[in-house]
Amino acid sequence: MSAKPTPLSGFPELLPEQRIVEQQIIDTLRHTFELYGFGNLETRAVEPLDQLLRKGDTSKEVYLLRRLHEESAEGHAGMGLHFDLTVPFARYVLENAGKLEFPFRRHQIQRVWRGERPQEGRFREFLQADIDVVGRDVLPFHHDVEVARVMVDALTRLDFLPAFRLQVNNRKLIQGFYLGLGITEPDEVMRLVDKLDKLPAEKVHELLVTEAGVDAATADRVLALATISAADDSFVARVRELGVEHPLLDEGLDELARLVTGVADLTSPQVRVEADLAIARGLDYYTGTVFETRLEGYESLGSICSGGRYDALASDGRSTYPGVGISLGVSRVVVPLIARTGLVADRKVPSVVLVALADEESRAESDTIAAALRARDIPCEVAAAAQRFGKQIRYAERRGIPYVWFRSVAEDGAVTDEVKDIRSGNQFAADAATWQPPAEDLRPRITRG
Amino acid sequence: MSAKPTPLSGFPELLPEQRIVEQQIIDTLRHTFELYGFGNLETRAVEPLDQLLRKGDTSKEVYLLRRLHEESAEGHAGMGLHFDLTVPFARYVLENAGKLEFPFRRHQIQRVWRGERPQEGRFREFLQADIDVVGRDVLPFHHDVEVARVMVDALTRLDFLPAFRLQVNNRKLIQGFYLGLGITEPDEVMRLVDKLDKLPAEKVHELLVTEAGVDAATADRVLALATISAADDSFVARVRELGVEHPLLDEGLDELARLVTGVADLTSPQVRVEADLAIARGLDYYTGTVFETRLEGYESLGSICSGGRYDALASDGRSTYPGVGISLGVSRVVVPLIARTGLVADRKVPSVVLVALADEESRAESDTIAAALRARDIPCEVAAAAQRFGKQIRYAERRGIPYVWFRSVAEDGAVTDEVKDIRSGNQFAADAATWQPPAEDLRPRITRG
Repeated sequence: MSAKPTPLSGFPELLPEQRIVEQQIIDTLRHTFELYGFGNLETRAVEPLDQLLRKGDTSKEVYLLRRLHEESAEGHAGMGLHFDLTVPFARYVLENAGKLEFPFRRHQIQRVWRGERPQEGRFREFLQADIDVVGRDVLPFHHDVEVARVMVDALTRLDFLPAFRLQVNNRKLIQGFYLGLGITEPDEVMRLVDKLDKLPAEKVHELLVTEAGVDAATADRVLALATISAADDSFVARVRELGVEHPLLDEGLDELARLVTGVADLTSPQVRVEADLAIARGLDYYTGTVFETRLEGYESLGSICSGGRYDALASDGRSTYPGVGISLGVSRVVVPLIARTGLVADRKVPSVVLVALADEESRAESDTIAAALRARDIPCEVAAAAQRFGKQIRYAERRGIPYVWFRSVAEDGAVTDEVKDIRSGNQFAADAATWQPPAEDLRPRITRG
Repeated sequence: MSAKPTPLSGFPELLPEQRIVEQQIIDTLRHTFELYGFGNLETRAVEPLDQLLRKGDTSKEVYLLRRLHEESAEGHAGMGLHFDLTVPFARYVLENAGKLEFPFRRHQIQRVWRGERPQEGRFREFLQADIDVVGRDVLPFHHDVEVARVMVDALTRLDFLPAFRLQVNNRKLIQGFYLGLGITEPDEVMRLVDKLDKLPAEKVHELLVTEAGVDAATADRVLALATISAADDSFVARVRELGVEHPLLDEGLDELARLVTGVADLTSPQVRVEADLAIARGLDYYTGTVFETRLEGYESLGSICSGGRYDALASDGRSTYPGVGISLGVSRVVVPLIARTGLVADRKVPSVVLVALADEESRAESDTIAAALRARDIPCEVAAAAQRFGKQIRYAERRGIPYVWFRSVAEDGAVTDEVKDIRSGNQFAADAATWQPPAEDLRPRITRG
């Protein structure tokens, strides 16, 4: 490379001190998910195109693969990069069903690719963190409550995250309500109602009449349902007041009330949970519960954490594998958070200690000190060059390394080791075989630049 | 999905109990690299095609990207998936040079893609773990020793790994020797000598004469050099005996001797390190030190861990960024090791405890017990259904969960909590606020199936 390369729009990359932020977030997510029995899994990045295009509305956004010298331009045997982790997971469950134990919990933290137009929080390559529970043939409703609780716990542990609002709804409720109204194409109506966050209610009302062919009075009730939200199960009475009856509506109301009640104790200044009957989710594989999550002050990002119940995504003819899951857009949150608040680690390297170098001849000696520290799991590095000590301290400072280790040899050959906390300037005698930095210095800390 | 999908050749996936093996390997690698000050970094999966094709001999193996509804079949603005982590890292260094501190150390653990024919240990999508140190304008030779030492330390910590042999050489040594012999195209000769692991020496001799145009006596000496190997710096005298003189040869001999001497203390029954003057590495960006690593009993995999010094890979016109690195083919090792030895975690889930469920009405109570355990970082899960206790114990057994937690309520309302180690059958009273499993049970252990 002979000229400075420029970034690729939609393919964000982080500086070392920013990557530490992202990695601590990933570590926290993984730790939390594992506490609840969700082991980690990875699937290949590549899926057959027919799987990728089978469901959902993202077909235009798939990246196809082709080998450079492949004859056909049709793509590598019809392969594409996955655009989410749910479709590959459903495929994985079917492929390995005989070797898995159900209910099967897993978390998955991987990159996904979508060829959409880049904007803040929307990338062409980004990291997602998903949790799902899948059953064989049946999956009791308490797992819907479980995945919501696990994700709220995980998000709550990210203490630099703004307050967030988990919004829940249930597609059975919506569909049952529409069927009770005599609407014959509830999916089309749902698609139009989903536009309420972009269009005024009057415009959606007009579309319901002109595009979905419902009468004005029915459109009124459709929109009335979408305005209902509540932090407790009081939404049930408000829906009942609209006077619509359908068995699927009853089922959806019951499920949503159980969900809202089941997570009510998680409410805090940091966390709001509410039933919001306008939430529908774009992808059509959801069959019951749906989740969205919005960050206070970052509403323009849309939902940063979404998911729901999918009862029919995976079936091998003999069994079906109903599931429920929720997916955090890690890059969607981390990249704007870093850009807007300057979130950053307080050092650029893992090293807690820089072992100074008296002269190039004593490099082996400095290496021995470093080895003694590493033997007790203290990350450290030896100075790159035997500059004067003031320069070596600045070397540590530029990287945010908090301690510098000095060895001095007196004229009588006596060896003295000292370690300097370069933040306070304090310097004290230390033994590489026993000295321990304070626990809070062992890992980089996250600060607002 | 309505039929059982089949695996894609060359795109390996692991079962949950195998993924735990891979993840513990990744954790160990990351921990070791961080101890030496190598922070983690990730780059985008996508690079401009001209970067991918600029160096090396893998151009045929690159996967191009194209958006599904893109007009041109030429690929997404000439983008492809990276086939290694060195080329993207060199690009990242150039792009961010003004914001990095040099010498810059980083490790990178990511998937790479190559469209080659799949075979054991050769995949189309696989995980690599790289460490590199890059300087600005200069990078002292001691970093060549450093990256070798760090990687050997990391590999040594993988205690289920077979014994391995790190083979080192130096391209200055080889080139200087060839130049001293009067060979005008040393790269072509090097390419032919690289075939020694596939072709008999006589055949290579013949090719040297017919294809590289060297005379028979010169070809003899070229092959004589390639037969030299040694676990110490005794190779220097053996090279000198061949009677070739060149300043570049002197430089290469000196560097290689320093490298072999610098890692000699790492030798153990598990680790051999040797200078092997037949090693050259295919990629032409190496300019000095080259590394290869072979696993005992897995010689057919070829080198599982390779790298070297690259002094000219990155330059922005004002500065050059010489580097040295070494790259472990994680999938190349893990997948065959699992396949051949049945390496597996002793449980399929992170959970240490299954909290039993007396009846569905007491789920909230079991959830509370689980929450108390999780508050002290003990992974656990609540039984999926209130089956009889024998079935719940088998539920734990099938997953390898070592402990089952039972709560019983006496007629007088007194509550008793007990935990059963289902491996020994021992059951004892316990308090969810204080009980601690033995440390060795906290994480899954790796066993040979």
